[in-house]
Amino acid sequence: MVSVLITGANRGIGLGLIRHLLAEPSVSTVIATVRDVNSAKNLKALGNPKLHIVQLEVVKEESIAAAVKKVREIVGAKGLDILINNAGIGHMSPLNGNFSKVKIFEVLEVNTVAPLLIANKFYPLLKETAAKKGSAQIVNISSGLGSLGDVPKKGKEMPFSVYGMSKCALNMLTRRITVEWKDDHIRATSFCPGWVKTDLGTEAAQYTVDESTKPLTKFILSLTEEHNGNFYQHTGEKIPW
Amino acid sequence: MVSVLITGANRGIGLGLIRHLLAEPSVSTVIATVRDVNSAKNLKALGNPKLHIVQLEVVKEESIAAAVKKVREIVGAKGLDILINNAGIGHMSPLNGNFSKVKIFEVLEVNTVAPLLIANKFYPLLKETAAKKGSAQIVNISSGLGSLGDVPKKGKEMPFSVYGMSKCALNMLTRRITVEWKDDHIRATSFCPGWVKTDLGTEAAQYTVDESTKPLTKFILSLTEEHNGNFYQHTGEKIPW
Repeated sequence: MVSVLITGANRGIGLGLIRHLLAEPSVSTVIATVRDVNSAKNLKALGNPKLHIVQLEVVKEESIAAAVKKVREIVGAKGLDILINNAGIGHMSPLNGNFSKVKIFEVLEVNTVAPLLIANKFYPLLKETAAKKGSAQIVNISSGLGSLGDVPKKGKEMPFSVYGMSKCALNMLTRRITVEWKDDHIRATSFCPGWVKTDLGTEAAQYTVDESTKPLTKFILSLTEEHNGNFYQHTGEKIPW
Repeated sequence: MVSVLITGANRGIGLGLIRHLLAEPSVSTVIATVRDVNSAKNLKALGNPKLHIVQLEVVKEESIAAAVKKVREIVGAKGLDILINNAGIGHMSPLNGNFSKVKIFEVLEVNTVAPLLIANKFYPLLKETAAKKGSAQIVNISSGLGSLGDVPKKGKEMPFSVYGMSKCALNMLTRRITVEWKDDHIRATSFCPGWVKTDLGTEAAQYTVDESTKPLTKFILSLTEEHNGNFYQHTGEKIPW
């Protein structure tokens, strides 16, 4: 029986993952973190006893520290098996367009810095869990737009420069974790959920939330040492760095 | 005859590149940018007529815009052939250590956001140059610590997580330029200068500034379409993303 935490859980891919995780018999506890618990209507509507909604503003260090405390109360001696850094934002930013430093920092803060701080602050809990159960897993929801190797495939038509930079840097977090926390048996894996019909992905996207998050949930729950430090599409193919 | 601009030019690798560029007969103009012209003693001491010192605070948009104007006055109709994003900062940041969001942002701002803004603001000048001369070149001074593929080689002993993230994101800028500005014939290439005896690299480093910047200068001046969008060690080997 595993406990899973997901950030940015009230909509889009986060909410999809929550739904599919709750349906899994092997999952005993699902912690959904949201910026504002009061407005987390989608989560509350699920009315599932396995589900715990926890306040977490991913860009605020004090908020992360408070969430760690709350999560410890919820999971108790069982520990936290899987931490999913899902909260993300993004917008197009063609390289020859008008850049706003404020907007660049917003994207880097949510997509790159927050997962780093969250991993850092949840480290003691994940380490304790891994010591008891053999391993703990961090999942970073990255993007194919963060693949340096695949840039020519995405091309000019997908001018997500800043978003791509933020997700590429997030992949570096995945890689660093596998090296620095190897002896603690904390693993990390990056995923591209596909181009999904969400607020970010728009209605033009390739996949419905279910088409992305159903296989992604199965994949996340079946991760082994073999997947440690790698980058995968939700469908299972490896993505180049 | 080519014109070259380098940021962060008063010390370390930047100053080394300046010295070797000035010695090249094919280089007619070297523009060294520094945060504070008054204290750029090392550059002034070179006393070379090819050398122009320009004020540029790489993290300030207005400062970049002012530098573009100044550079246009210096290079005139010859244009700017090579733009080298060299200014960089860094420090160790083990993943289980104490993180300061302010320090994380400082590194991302100088190493990642500044090169993006500089490329963006110099784009019209580089495009004009490329239209006249066939191509223009952006060089991003990255680091082997920004190679996702090479993370296991660097290992726990080099806990430069934030620095690595910032350089990995810089490599994404290199990649995006090759796609988005392909039709403008603006190329981009990332380099690792090696582990160099500088303020950042410390005295324990593998190479002297000259051992790094002499071959690096030759390499930069010989870049062709073949090197567009790739990542190289100063010695010439390709580095994996």
